[in-house]
Amino acid sequence: MGKKQKVEAVTPMNEDFARWYTDVISKTELVDYSPVKGFMVIRPYGYAIWENIQKEYDKRFKETGHQNMYFPLLIPESLLKKEAEHVEGFAPEVAWVTHGGGKELAERLCIRPTSETIICSMYSKWLNTYRQLPFKYNQWCSVVRWEKTTRPFLRTSEFLWQEGHTLHETYDEAQEETMQMLDIYRDVAEEYLAIPMVVGKKSEKEKFAGAYSTYTMEALMHDGQALQSGTSHNLGQHFTKAFEISYLDRENNQANPYHTSWGISTRLIGAIIMVHGDDNGLVLPPKIAPTQLVIIPIAQHKEGVLDAAYEIKNSLKEKFRVELDDMDGYTPGWKFNQWEMKGVPIRLEIGPRDIEEGQCILARRDTGEKVQVSLEDLATTIEKLLDEIQDNMYQKALNMREQKTSIAEDMNEFKDNLTKNPGFIKAMWCGSRECEDKIKDETGATLRCVPFEQEVIGDGTCVCCREKANDMAYFARAY
Amino acid sequence: MGKKQKVEAVTPMNEDFARWYTDVISKTELVDYSPVKGFMVIRPYGYAIWENIQKEYDKRFKETGHQNMYFPLLIPESLLKKEAEHVEGFAPEVAWVTHGGGKELAERLCIRPTSETIICSMYSKWLNTYRQLPFKYNQWCSVVRWEKTTRPFLRTSEFLWQEGHTLHETYDEAQEETMQMLDIYRDVAEEYLAIPMVVGKKSEKEKFAGAYSTYTMEALMHDGQALQSGTSHNLGQHFTKAFEISYLDRENNQANPYHTSWGISTRLIGAIIMVHGDDNGLVLPPKIAPTQLVIIPIAQHKEGVLDAAYEIKNSLKEKFRVELDDMDGYTPGWKFNQWEMKGVPIRLEIGPRDIEEGQCILARRDTGEKVQVSLEDLATTIEKLLDEIQDNMYQKALNMREQKTSIAEDMNEFKDNLTKNPGFIKAMWCGSRECEDKIKDETGATLRCVPFEQEVIGDGTCVCCREKANDMAYFARAY
Repeated sequence: MGKKQKVEAVTPMNEDFARWYTDVISKTELVDYSPVKGFMVIRPYGYAIWENIQKEYDKRFKETGHQNMYFPLLIPESLLKKEAEHVEGFAPEVAWVTHGGGKELAERLCIRPTSETIICSMYSKWLNTYRQLPFKYNQWCSVVRWEKTTRPFLRTSEFLWQEGHTLHETYDEAQEETMQMLDIYRDVAEEYLAIPMVVGKKSEKEKFAGAYSTYTMEALMHDGQALQSGTSHNLGQHFTKAFEISYLDRENNQANPYHTSWGISTRLIGAIIMVHGDDNGLVLPPKIAPTQLVIIPIAQHKEGVLDAAYEIKNSLKEKFRVELDDMDGYTPGWKFNQWEMKGVPIRLEIGPRDIEEGQCILARRDTGEKVQVSLEDLATTIEKLLDEIQDNMYQKALNMREQKTSIAEDMNEFKDNLTKNPGFIKAMWCGSRECEDKIKDETGATLRCVPFEQEVIGDGTCVCCREKANDMAYFARAY
Repeated sequence: MGKKQKVEAVTPMNEDFARWYTDVISKTELVDYSPVKGFMVIRPYGYAIWENIQKEYDKRFKETGHQNMYFPLLIPESLLKKEAEHVEGFAPEVAWVTHGGGKELAERLCIRPTSETIICSMYSKWLNTYRQLPFKYNQWCSVVRWEKTTRPFLRTSEFLWQEGHTLHETYDEAQEETMQMLDIYRDVAEEYLAIPMVVGKKSEKEKFAGAYSTYTMEALMHDGQALQSGTSHNLGQHFTKAFEISYLDRENNQANPYHTSWGISTRLIGAIIMVHGDDNGLVLPPKIAPTQLVIIPIAQHKEGVLDAAYEIKNSLKEKFRVELDDMDGYTPGWKFNQWEMKGVPIRLEIGPRDIEEGQCILARRDTGEKVQVSLEDLATTIEKLLDEIQDNMYQKALNMREQKTSIAEDMNEFKDNLTKNPGFIKAMWCGSRECEDKIKDETGATLRCVPFEQEVIGDGTCVCCREKANDMAYFARAY
């Protein structure tokens, strides 16, 4: 077996987490910086992860009766301004098109930062009667929000996402939809991306511009910072009234429907990197890894080795996303490092002696363990191992989060925890904006959400003002 | 069986083809006009067709070793200007972003009209050695080209497409790639969309801005106008030199790679409508129809009818894209019309007497024929019928094209044909820009392509100048 050469190492996580992150994404060729500041290029390996994420979410959306569609990229300024809170939230960060086809435009058009306004303008045209409801539509597209400081996947001036937009007869139905989509978000994130999520409600301060309520799933990264990973909004009738969407209801009256929107984005790739990665690079969950298994022939110039490797590949390729690295001029050790860096869940090594003995070696990316297995029933063995890796990665991420989650009864404890064990802090909150702001000012931690799973911390008084508090909330510094 | 009510008819094709087209797309809810002039909304039914087209092309791209990626929406003006012919071709029709994040930008950014320039700027960064070649990448995205007069799917200021961008060591390899992609375009168009294509080379006048050679597939619409349906460009080294993309070749010298790009777009949906549609609306080829079969219960209030209909649906839904229209308050005849309008390939009717006799009726959208079939082996019967419909639609379209294709030996015949039987005109061409321009000025017909399948028309002299001509070309008025 080739000697393991430690080439092209990444900055260790503990030394500089931000540097580790950018090292990993550039060495694995997930993204690159484009000539336009703040805009990134998603390279094939990164995009393949996105396609796998998309595929699963899209399937779930369709299973729950949603259909895809496509709305224009550009939104007239007058439309963006129709819902007051919305324009206030988004106007400062939009990009404006002022010229087209060689002429100055009569009205400026913004590149969509999100599509509520243009979609509502069309829904008002399409909706006539309660018989048409619900409207359950979604679009996959890119959006632009001008950002001052950017970081690939986490915060960029353009990103890829999906935005669902639904209309319903009643508030309850809209609320049910809002919850259903959040649940789908969490379910795929936990089951496919192996990332445990805290789900709950955003505070008034943190909710979407124009929403009645915003719900979120929040993940915890290796460095103890939180990442908002998907949001689902009950928009009430804010937009449907502003955009005069109305229909003839069951009692023959004109009514405004209730409205939801919900989105996840390429940000999830950032979460995968920062939750599962280690000092050897990416660690990808089998269910979304572009390559689930890589075959590396040992002493590939020896007779029969490459043939055996190809035979294995062919026998597995229907069931798994498998690659064979038969590049000449590189040692197996060099290849091990490369594929480790890329986070491929299983490495299969096959050399002359293995072939004689009818076996091969499987090495797990998540634990580093190696096992000798028989070439018989190889597919079954690999299938089980991939499941085991997927489960282990979730469990490991959950343990990491639990280890980095603490409780605080007062501000001293709060600050102390944030210094000694950065992560989620569970604390009681009185519900006031003052306390929320004060906590942020003093600690840099923001209120991530009021989780659905409640508990009482200490004597039940607000961690900040020590008045009676009804809610327990998660706080953290966040991306 | 319900009486057929002729409600909501579309303008007959022969009366006003343009009106027929817009009637069909609006009544079937394929698209709608957005608040921004020239930009369209692709509604769920239209988008579902696009998803089916995408799926097949994407599969073929991947089978031939291409990977997807994503490049930024915005391109700096300085990049757009690097290749001289390219900027001249595209600058007049781009949209300019001048403000972002509340500030005027130092440099204007255009919304991509196509991505050669930004992709080349990144390729120059990524490519170092011949060992990395070929680069075979593609992206699915939307592009913006400001248009004065627009028509849904055919010409809009924003459209959805894919753009492949590859780099190769030699001219021959690039040429081979260019031809391979054109062949995939044609193959899917013919096999899935059931649209026969003429394939060939564009004239210098009609080629892509910056290309060495452009190849095209051209389809003929019901009204005798041609539609350019997909193009594949051998870009030579025009862009790779302008963008200084170079690599260390096998002889250790710096070399510029050879370059291709190729694209198909939502325009193909326009082709499907205008090639297959009739006075009752859309006719969709089974392989890309969002719904392949619709079940319409007859006398659905009668005991057992809906149960039987659901049972049939359940037995078919794994194999086919099937819907059951159990809406109350509409006659079967009304439903027949609706689904006919939507172009669903097969309608399955099931009523009380059918159930008793263990049979149902299948009605074909393409021919109007109805057959009584046994409920046993229903899936096999339907599978065969869908294949038959797919083949028949292709054959019908081919007949239509052949009937509308004529030859012309001189300009009188050319003009005469265009008036009496508008369509493709095959004629000899000397290769000069003068004759090409003159033909367009006098007849409105453009040179669609010099087809790969050549023949000699008449005495082999140019239809326009009557000098010796080496090429036979297809001419037509075009969208």
